[in-house]
Amino acid sequence: MPLAPDIPRLLDELSKLAEISAHPAPAVTRVLFSAEDLAARKWLLARAAEAGLATRADAVGNLFITLPGSEPGLAPVATGSHTDAIPNAGAYDGTVGVLGGLEALRAIREAGETPRRPIELVMFTAEEPTRFGIGCLGSRMMAGTLGADGARALRDADGRSLEELRPGDCTGPLESVQLRDSTYFRFIELHIEQGPELEATGTDIGLVGKIAAPAAFRLRFSGSGGHAGAVLMSERHDAFLAAAEVALVVERAALESPSNDTVGTTGVVEVKPGAINSIPCDVLLEIDFRDTDLAAREEAIDRIRREATRICDRRGVRLDWACINSDPPATCDPAILELAARNADALGYSHTRMISRAYHDSLFMARLCPTAMIFIPCRKGWSHRPDEYASPEAIARGTTLLAHTLLDLANLPDPPDTPDA
Amino acid sequence: MPLAPDIPRLLDELSKLAEISAHPAPAVTRVLFSAEDLAARKWLLARAAEAGLATRADAVGNLFITLPGSEPGLAPVATGSHTDAIPNAGAYDGTVGVLGGLEALRAIREAGETPRRPIELVMFTAEEPTRFGIGCLGSRMMAGTLGADGARALRDADGRSLEELRPGDCTGPLESVQLRDSTYFRFIELHIEQGPELEATGTDIGLVGKIAAPAAFRLRFSGSGGHAGAVLMSERHDAFLAAAEVALVVERAALESPSNDTVGTTGVVEVKPGAINSIPCDVLLEIDFRDTDLAAREEAIDRIRREATRICDRRGVRLDWACINSDPPATCDPAILELAARNADALGYSHTRMISRAYHDSLFMARLCPTAMIFIPCRKGWSHRPDEYASPEAIARGTTLLAHTLLDLANLPDPPDTPDA
Repeated sequence: MPLAPDIPRLLDELSKLAEISAHPAPAVTRVLFSAEDLAARKWLLARAAEAGLATRADAVGNLFITLPGSEPGLAPVATGSHTDAIPNAGAYDGTVGVLGGLEALRAIREAGETPRRPIELVMFTAEEPTRFGIGCLGSRMMAGTLGADGARALRDADGRSLEELRPGDCTGPLESVQLRDSTYFRFIELHIEQGPELEATGTDIGLVGKIAAPAAFRLRFSGSGGHAGAVLMSERHDAFLAAAEVALVVERAALESPSNDTVGTTGVVEVKPGAINSIPCDVLLEIDFRDTDLAAREEAIDRIRREATRICDRRGVRLDWACINSDPPATCDPAILELAARNADALGYSHTRMISRAYHDSLFMARLCPTAMIFIPCRKGWSHRPDEYASPEAIARGTTLLAHTLLDLANLPDPPDTPDA
Repeated sequence: MPLAPDIPRLLDELSKLAEISAHPAPAVTRVLFSAEDLAARKWLLARAAEAGLATRADAVGNLFITLPGSEPGLAPVATGSHTDAIPNAGAYDGTVGVLGGLEALRAIREAGETPRRPIELVMFTAEEPTRFGIGCLGSRMMAGTLGADGARALRDADGRSLEELRPGDCTGPLESVQLRDSTYFRFIELHIEQGPELEATGTDIGLVGKIAAPAAFRLRFSGSGGHAGAVLMSERHDAFLAAAEVALVVERAALESPSNDTVGTTGVVEVKPGAINSIPCDVLLEIDFRDTDLAAREEAIDRIRREATRICDRRGVRLDWACINSDPPATCDPAILELAARNADALGYSHTRMISRAYHDSLFMARLCPTAMIFIPCRKGWSHRPDEYASPEAIARGTTLLAHTLLDLANLPDPPDTPDA
């Protein structure tokens, strides 16, 4: 029986969720464990309760919304994404996967279907790194890539810890977040493309075969301050000028990489003391560097580090270089992609295989179980900005395809070699 | 009769004032109209009241502490400096002039002297530009360089105005801050050098003949944001990379200037959205550029502006360039310098003529009346940093010289061509 997600309801929920924001519309800002993030979580759980779905939270604030299966002992099929948003972001990144996932669960139930396996929607804690400087916090801990001790050591800009900030319904030791490999049978995430390819080629659906390998670094430049009027140029050790040179090296290393998919970004720049008449003495720079080609990425990062050292030596500025994370790429499960492609054909949606250059919770879920991603087009490839946009048609197609694929995965027979219950 | 400032009392007050700080010692942070700035003002007025000196405030929060003269109708001789401090600054910049000035007034009174003219100590509002992005706010308004309408239009980073933030005892229209040219007879400011020259040459006192010409600019770079993983390098319009190039141009323009005294600094850098996985789309850069040679400064600024335009055109980033202020240099009064030199000789202090590369309230007081400055050495020329330091001996010499010079100026006969009462 065909599944019919209620698209007006879903669009209405997307727009209601967008209103829960620390910045005025169309900007969306929901930083982990801020008042807005907590309000969005509460709102999401109320929507799930309204739909009669069971909910729970784990110790790091990952939320789980479950549609029961006819064989409750079996490992669930899961979908999910995130509702947190960086400052001045848009209404679709992450939220389409969460609310589209919720709508898929409702559509399956409203079609009178009872899947064999439970289907679980996960709202992952802090896919965005804004608060703690590390992305995919929830899924990273679920996969055990970040352990409880590492998570406990995290501090935000105000020196506060995860355990201090997590809401009251997230209890228990952080150790309990990590899952066994057999917890989930399959995982599939719906997301906006965050790139221009689907829109440019007029393709309805992207089926993600590979997720690019991200690495992130935190650089501290310690120079020598002083009065902007009084210290002659030849006597300066300006931490910001060193950082400015390094940011330009990051760009050059990405541009000159042999891989076409190399991107390097210096998105966090904090300059102290930050007064117009004072020479910068302390600068924080955070670099995000990604590639589908791990070797090309590592070579570019080596170059950046080498040139940064040379620049700082020349300027008499001290450089502290720390790796925030450096993850290998993920390969998506060919069988899930094949199933999704057949469903897309049946629904009359055009589709293409692609890679994801952006970072997703799927990267870590892929370490726990066979995983894949469904992309839908978004306007001009924009995301992480207020004018981020996906059309109602694109959202409808993605959600319908997700619903069918989840149901099919939940009804798959147990594979002979991987007993999961 | 020789004047004998109480140096232990003065040093004790300097250290007590340093404790009123938003950052822990040895850092000193007192931003205009912050809790700490208000506490420091209250503390200073209490010290003046203890000494039996009359106090008052004007509409912008300049504080006046007066030692009466025997002929109260005459225009006062004035001294003064500031107690506000940029974030993470030190204990001596400005405060030596204010507390040294207070000690000078007490020393004159305690020596049993009654000067002919009143002597007035001024604590100027916001010599530092931290809150409103413009330095010497109090003295600038006293001189009429910044009018009441301009002052009313100022907003801090949170959008608050001067009138909203000024304390309760600062009342009246901002128009009332501007003084007539005949308000003061003479002005002389005591200050740490903020440069290495006096220490390096073992000289006790610097007598400032000229104050360098400062100019300040606010640059806004508007680029195109997006996800750090998803937008390819060739499609980017990164506002921060444009700003980084411009900061390096500022350095180059200063280094390659024909004048030896050119300095250029990019001290304020704010990058938005400020997330590690987001391409910077909006950057604020503030540039401070100074010279003793006005023509060399203007030529360098033209070059920076030209190259900034070229950089932003090439990167597809919009540049908005605004002048915050651009002041001509001040020349100090030769007669005051001559008098101070004679007093230094009599006291056995070595002295030299010098220029001030830093910005001071004296720059604006020089527009109201004959003005000069006394510099004392500070360690390595450091200022605007927590390890800023002037020795007790240097502070004692500067204060003693200030006291004698103030008293002599207050007792000068009225010049025949400038009746001032």
